[in-house]
Amino acid sequence: MPPDTPRGSVSLLPVRPCLLVVVTLVSVLQNAFFALKVEKESSSSAFERVCCANRNCMDAYSTFLALMWCAGLCLSQVPAAFAGLVYLVVRHKYFVGYMGQSCQSTPCFLFGKRVLFFMMLMCVVGIVNFLLLRFCGSDYNKELLETLTKAATALLLIP
Amino acid sequence: MPPDTPRGSVSLLPVRPCLLVVVTLVSVLQNAFFALKVEKESSSSAFERVCCANRNCMDAYSTFLALMWCAGLCLSQVPAAFAGLVYLVVRHKYFVGYMGQSCQSTPCFLFGKRVLFFMMLMCVVGIVNFLLLRFCGSDYNKELLETLTKAATALLLIP
Amino acid sequence: MPPDTPRGSVSLLPVRPCLLVVVTLVSVLQNAFFALKVEKESSSSAFERVCCANRNCMDAYSTFLALMWCAGLCLSQVPAAFAGLVYLVVRHKYFVGYMGQSCQSTPCFLFGKRVLFFMMLMCVVGIVNFLLLRFCGSDYNKELLETLTKAATALLLIP
Repeated sequence: MPPDTPRGSVSLLPVRPCLLVVVTLVSVLQNAFFALKVEKESSSSAFERVCCANRNCMDAYSTFLALMWCAGLCLSQVPAAFAGLVYLVVRHKYFVGYMGQSCQSTPCFLFGKRVLFFMMLMCVVGIVNFLLLRFCGSDYNKELLETLTKAATALLLIP
Repeated sequence: MPPDTPRGSVSLLPVRPCLLVVVTLVSVLQNAFFALKVEKESSSSAFERVCCANRNCMDAYSTFLALMWCAGLCLSQVPAAFAGLVYLVVRHKYFVGYMGQSCQSTPCFLFGKRVLFFMMLMCVVGIVNFLLLRFCGSDYNKELLETLTKAATALLLIP
Repeated sequence: MPPDTPRGSVSLLPVRPCLLVVVTLVSVLQNAFFALKVEKESSSSAFERVCCANRNCMDAYSTFLALMWCAGLCLSQVPAAFAGLVYLVVRHKYFVGYMGQSCQSTPCFLFGKRVLFFMMLMCVVGIVNFLLLRFCGSDYNKELLETLTKAATALLLIP
């Protein structure tokens, strides 16, 4: 522990990933909403469908969290958190829209594929950038990179 | 990589989140215990129930890990790790108590709700504290905050 | 935020856990491969088996990620990332081999147990090492530790 940090409520990271934490909290609230929905429907005929939608959403949850945090740690937290929010909106639409359909056990990689792909791209770009910085000793592509990332983030909004 | 850190077994974080890692390891051991229980019962009549209890516990596992680490990173790792331990005890009671009952596919947000809510509160307090520090430039509420957190942690012990 | 770090694409960690991120990305790609496999088989007779294999793999995914990142943060990221890759290979073999068998709801802690156990051992060694460094004020065992870790990593390759 460095000597200049207080013992009690010291932050564990040099830069607080506030936005990522906020999106994570929103996703936890969404999980709780799904769970309450399943509990409420537990005696009705829609139970199977709600339960199945919840299952599909929970299956992809770890993957989503891992991708969002990797993208935030590798490149920049603002686009990563924004992409995370977009994913949560898509997930909500999926859950609500699922109510009327019959249950299929397809994993829900099948929705939000574009958002997850974008986050994976951010990770790859971040790693390539890091390697360039480390082995070429130059950061010529940094500003270009940021512009590209922001442009790509805007592209996510197109339905 | 900073020049003053050795290459081989360098720690990736400035302050090691030892307590969070320990609680995570305990939760992994608990998962292994649940899995062994499921394997042992795989030919008996209690299999369905054990399998269902294991499923409900695993469903909420990602959410629990995300909340505990966010709370530890945002505010302070001691109360977060303590709340995590309390959650693991509650989960164990749930798993053992489930053996005798019939299986329901309710997600296990329904147990340990209070602990999870407390961890979420810690995240919110940490973020508000960070924003106050950043934009008001004062840490007047830091000691008050720590006292409040410790008092709230003690409240968790009340059944 | 420290004053000397730029605002935009600042990295959130002092040392980038590149290898851990790469292994996480590979595991996400593997998840996507499993999900596509499930989708492709959704109308054939093998659907139940593929779906069950996918389920067993996803159940242990959170535990795997938590263990790998803890091992990487606690001790050293090179052996942790290598063990993670070995685990992914074992998981792939398990998924492909599962196709021909009947479905059992056994959680897949039962494969890759040795790899997970090794990662847990790394965490314990890292914590003990940290406590020794902190309270004994000596790092006499550091080189011994690294040698041991590398030797143990090589042992993982023995089938």
